[in-house]
Amino acid sequence: MGQTLAEKILADHLVEGELETGEEIGIEIDQVLTQDTTGTLVWLQFEALGLDEVQTELAAQYCDHQTYQFDFKNTDDHRFLRSAAGTFGAHFSRPGNGICHNVHKENFAAPGKTLLGSDSHTPTPGGLGQLAIGSGGLDVAVAMGGGAYYIEMPEVVNVRLEGELPEWATAKDVILEMLRRLSVKGGVGKIFEYTGPGVETLSVPERTTITNMGTELGATSSLFPTDEKTKDYLERQGRGDQYVELQPDDDAEYADEIVVDLSDLEPLIATPSMPDNVVPVREVAGQSVDQVMIGSCTNGGYEDILPGAKMLEGREVDKKTDMIVAPGSKQASELLAREGWVAELMAAGVNFSEATCGACIGIGHVPASDSVSLRTFNRNFEGRSGIEDDNVYLCSPEVATAAAIKGEIIDPRDLAEELGDLEAPGTELPDAYSGSKVDLIAPDEAVDDGLVKGPNIGDVPLKDPLEATLAGPALLKMEDNITTDHIIPATQDILMYRSNIPKLSEFTLSRVDENFAQRALDADGGFLVAGENYGQGSSREHAALCPMYLGVQGVLAQSFARIHKANLFNFGLLPLVIDEETYERIEEGDDIEVVDDVSEAVTSGQEEFTVRVNDDWEFTAELDASARERDILAAGGKLSLTKQQYEDSSGGAAPADD
Amino acid sequence: MGQTLAEKILADHLVEGELETGEEIGIEIDQVLTQDTTGTLVWLQFEALGLDEVQTELAAQYCDHQTYQFDFKNTDDHRFLRSAAGTFGAHFSRPGNGICHNVHKENFAAPGKTLLGSDSHTPTPGGLGQLAIGSGGLDVAVAMGGGAYYIEMPEVVNVRLEGELPEWATAKDVILEMLRRLSVKGGVGKIFEYTGPGVETLSVPERTTITNMGTELGATSSLFPTDEKTKDYLERQGRGDQYVELQPDDDAEYADEIVVDLSDLEPLIATPSMPDNVVPVREVAGQSVDQVMIGSCTNGGYEDILPGAKMLEGREVDKKTDMIVAPGSKQASELLAREGWVAELMAAGVNFSEATCGACIGIGHVPASDSVSLRTFNRNFEGRSGIEDDNVYLCSPEVATAAAIKGEIIDPRDLAEELGDLEAPGTELPDAYSGSKVDLIAPDEAVDDGLVKGPNIGDVPLKDPLEATLAGPALLKMEDNITTDHIIPATQDILMYRSNIPKLSEFTLSRVDENFAQRALDADGGFLVAGENYGQGSSREHAALCPMYLGVQGVLAQSFARIHKANLFNFGLLPLVIDEETYERIEEGDDIEVVDDVSEAVTSGQEEFTVRVNDDWEFTAELDASARERDILAAGGKLSLTKQQYEDSSGGAAPADD
Repeated sequence: MGQTLAEKILADHLVEGELETGEEIGIEIDQVLTQDTTGTLVWLQFEALGLDEVQTELAAQYCDHQTYQFDFKNTDDHRFLRSAAGTFGAHFSRPGNGICHNVHKENFAAPGKTLLGSDSHTPTPGGLGQLAIGSGGLDVAVAMGGGAYYIEMPEVVNVRLEGELPEWATAKDVILEMLRRLSVKGGVGKIFEYTGPGVETLSVPERTTITNMGTELGATSSLFPTDEKTKDYLERQGRGDQYVELQPDDDAEYADEIVVDLSDLEPLIATPSMPDNVVPVREVAGQSVDQVMIGSCTNGGYEDILPGAKMLEGREVDKKTDMIVAPGSKQASELLAREGWVAELMAAGVNFSEATCGACIGIGHVPASDSVSLRTFNRNFEGRSGIEDDNVYLCSPEVATAAAIKGEIIDPRDLAEELGDLEAPGTELPDAYSGSKVDLIAPDEAVDDGLVKGPNIGDVPLKDPLEATLAGPALLKMEDNITTDHIIPATQDILMYRSNIPKLSEFTLSRVDENFAQRALDADGGFLVAGENYGQGSSREHAALCPMYLGVQGVLAQSFARIHKANLFNFGLLPLVIDEETYERIEEGDDIEVVDDVSEAVTSGQEEFTVRVNDDWEFTAELDASARERDILAAGGKLSLTKQQYEDSSGGAAPADD
Repeated sequence: MGQTLAEKILADHLVEGELETGEEIGIEIDQVLTQDTTGTLVWLQFEALGLDEVQTELAAQYCDHQTYQFDFKNTDDHRFLRSAAGTFGAHFSRPGNGICHNVHKENFAAPGKTLLGSDSHTPTPGGLGQLAIGSGGLDVAVAMGGGAYYIEMPEVVNVRLEGELPEWATAKDVILEMLRRLSVKGGVGKIFEYTGPGVETLSVPERTTITNMGTELGATSSLFPTDEKTKDYLERQGRGDQYVELQPDDDAEYADEIVVDLSDLEPLIATPSMPDNVVPVREVAGQSVDQVMIGSCTNGGYEDILPGAKMLEGREVDKKTDMIVAPGSKQASELLAREGWVAELMAAGVNFSEATCGACIGIGHVPASDSVSLRTFNRNFEGRSGIEDDNVYLCSPEVATAAAIKGEIIDPRDLAEELGDLEAPGTELPDAYSGSKVDLIAPDEAVDDGLVKGPNIGDVPLKDPLEATLAGPALLKMEDNITTDHIIPATQDILMYRSNIPKLSEFTLSRVDENFAQRALDADGGFLVAGENYGQGSSREHAALCPMYLGVQGVLAQSFARIHKANLFNFGLLPLVIDEETYERIEEGDDIEVVDDVSEAVTSGQEEFTVRVNDDWEFTAELDASARERDILAAGGKLSLTKQQYEDSSGGAAPADD
């Protein structure tokens, strides 16, 4: 029986388990990446584990979220990350050099390699045939130490692309169409593998727009085969030697098949406030627009900004609309500057920003109250832009630029008809991705003398092993689709405490209930209750670490988002699945008690747990966990377990060289 | 007797008083400018006064401080400002278009005209022979309504420039030399008029660096004559028709003369944390540098960034140093981008920012803790960068760039010798200041339908007329040189409340005593006590308005900074001058009581006030105020007075159309 491409790469890296859907497998990691809001904790954990040097082929630390450095804590974080990368042997990308996914794609992404990253959009280089997975930072720290990465073998789904994109339809519309069909939960436990004749019609940057935003489907990863387009892209990046041809076998068996006829697509847009609220642009045409932004890891490349620049050449941004372009990388900025496009964009009325994630997570260019913002980003979760009750739409650079010109949402095909002389810009690659590498500091160019920690950079808390009794109040009852943005917001006023857990924890779930943190601390134990898809969104492990710090012992939810569930194990929180009836019946404040000997039950592989509520009624909840995850949970989390394993094997923890 | 240039322009605009040093004069204002952190209050006051339309020849509203829009309140402010400019007839410069002083210089600054601006660096266009003065926003609002601007006739001091700048010495070194000689108090009550053969050796951008930073001397304004260089500059800006030849009379009499031989100058640097801590760069060479920034209204022009770009061509920023370039205007960015310099800067490792004041007031790129930052800005007051205990040095772009290349402070002459092939870049103007005007929205292009106020935009508080009795505790005793940054910090977390006085007031003097605001509110009245030069720094009227809101009734200081003293009158706070002995004797918490009938004494012109302390001892304090200022004080401030005058003349206040 033939293999899918995902299976081939996984088989090449398999160190434990078998490639059976739903079975836990351990895979070797070739490359890791971290960024500035998750990276500080990764390196603090790496340090706490007593490890000396990165063991993966390559590790890269990027500074992309906090490049505006609004607070010295951001700048201190960047300095610490530079010192950690230098000390432990990782590449360091300076603030302003660009978004991790873009810079990694340009410099390091390699077909057939595995990549683990502490950012949920890590799957981006899937567009080059790299199997890339987002995880919590602790998994990255362990992988950097040479440990395997464990995951349930996902279903591999074939997304067969037919036809060719018509004018004005783009790669963004491919992934928006996927979201329209499958919803933000449609990819949970799946790898989407793109095949079919449509693949060769898409350039690598177009492919990475699709793989990047596969994350919004909840997918484990997304993957394209490699071909002449891949080779050509790598050659233009000066890395042609890293090309490897990778295709699924002709007789590969997929768990499911989805057919997308590219020629059927038209300009689409995700309306507020979920990436799957997708409709044709024409359905919302006429909506006045206050702000337009091109950028992010989804559509912030040279190839994404160029179409906007071409559309704006000789034209102007509407006077009632602000347009900001934040390139995904300095390579993109530098190329656009060298070719004169930056000047053209400025002349058209664009505010041209440094390369940053920035506004995508509410850092900078927060929309005005009661206003509409069109963005080429990947997420429009409510409040993520930095203001509650926001109205953020997601679309292609072409749709965004059309709105900037018109001052309202308009299908670019209609704008072209209106203007008469507006041509569809299409996708164009530069002859060569020239650009300085000066902002990438290689491990052998390290500049710091050991770790440099500012006053806001603390230690990581450790949890004790699980005890027999687990009881406490239902501290908070939440609805479906609670995101990690709800659990730990990523706006700049909060983000700067990512390296300071006691302070950061004060903001836990504050967007749901501003008194939650204090109530949890006061209760000294207890549970969270949630509906479906709890913990969707970014990979931030702080969303598990902070509840742990506040004393939360477990989460009762109808279902969990994949990365967040792994983070709950990693920080020693018991994730129990409950049914809808139980969810409806539990009320905030109820006394919850797990009847079983929890420590024993977790270790022994017990799947069903009896839970007693208010000493009055009972329900059964399910623990879906591998033996490995159970070991982690029992030990009080992965850091405790890994440290203990280290001590067992070496007779003592290596002291942190602080 | 001949006239100085300042006297000529003042005489042309005189509507009240005589040009005798120290006498109060009223002058007609031709142009006004405001920016986004002072502008909201200006327009709220303009609205509160019931005025319909701007009466000056020209008014311009810029958005430059909060261009990162890290909070919706910033974006709301920008939207409100756009709507106010459109409603009342001002030009509106969009966020990202640049710093008010730079954009005003490029587009509107005109020889012989008067300019009043609610920003302390308003004197910048003095380099083009415009008499430009910084003031509180209320004065700007009144001037926009057609009212005269009142000021004590300053001394006019002749700064005679001899010789020519040697290689690597710059205009920045001229003004640093002035600061070295005269200190930050040396210009109080003075206009510096630059004359002599050295003038014609300096281009307009060099002259405006000097006039801009004249503010740090405490000067009322700084002024250059006009000549072929001025004409040439205006022609390159496409405004040659606005050239007027302006020179002082040959027999002009000056109050004082200072001679600066340009050929004696060498690269200078202001060390932390005052702009007058000036030493030759060589004295601090070898100091390791973590951050280098080129930008600001002092050195953020095309002509300032170009030298840095030339020095970096084919070179790299040191890997342990971060270098950020934040242009002063989009005209500068666009020119640099069009000529390829933006790409070169990026290739060298520079993080190229949007055009903004940003970091100069602690908004973005805040230095790391315990680090050193070299900046081409105008102020390095402690904490202004956004972190307490900062180490900010001020220098020319050449010195800054040399440090970025070397990773430590180095005299660029020594770096040139070290490198062998580093040429002094000199100052070069572009053939034409091309650049789009799309980001300047003219009054007849207004896009909003009336004023647009977000939820953070409130009304302005009004104070009741002065009463007979003035008594209360000494709420806080402060040292010399308390800046408006101490009184109301301008860091981004605080700045966003500039349109929300109750909230903003909570931060009043928090950098001196974090409990001050609550204590003042609780005391419901009282006094501030300070040493010399109280209120130096920016023009922000919030530094008077917020203490007023908190109930502060007066300030006892050894001396006052000019703009701040005017602001105290404008908001109805009694500024009394005390001698050093009294200053030493008063203690925080003392009960202070003005023995005289204050209302009567202020109105009648009484200069000496008897003040009783703790019912135990007395001292005499002095009120130095014109009849006009006394009227303002007695009425409870200028807004109350102007409103009352309006009511008296029209039989009723015009309702605000909110």
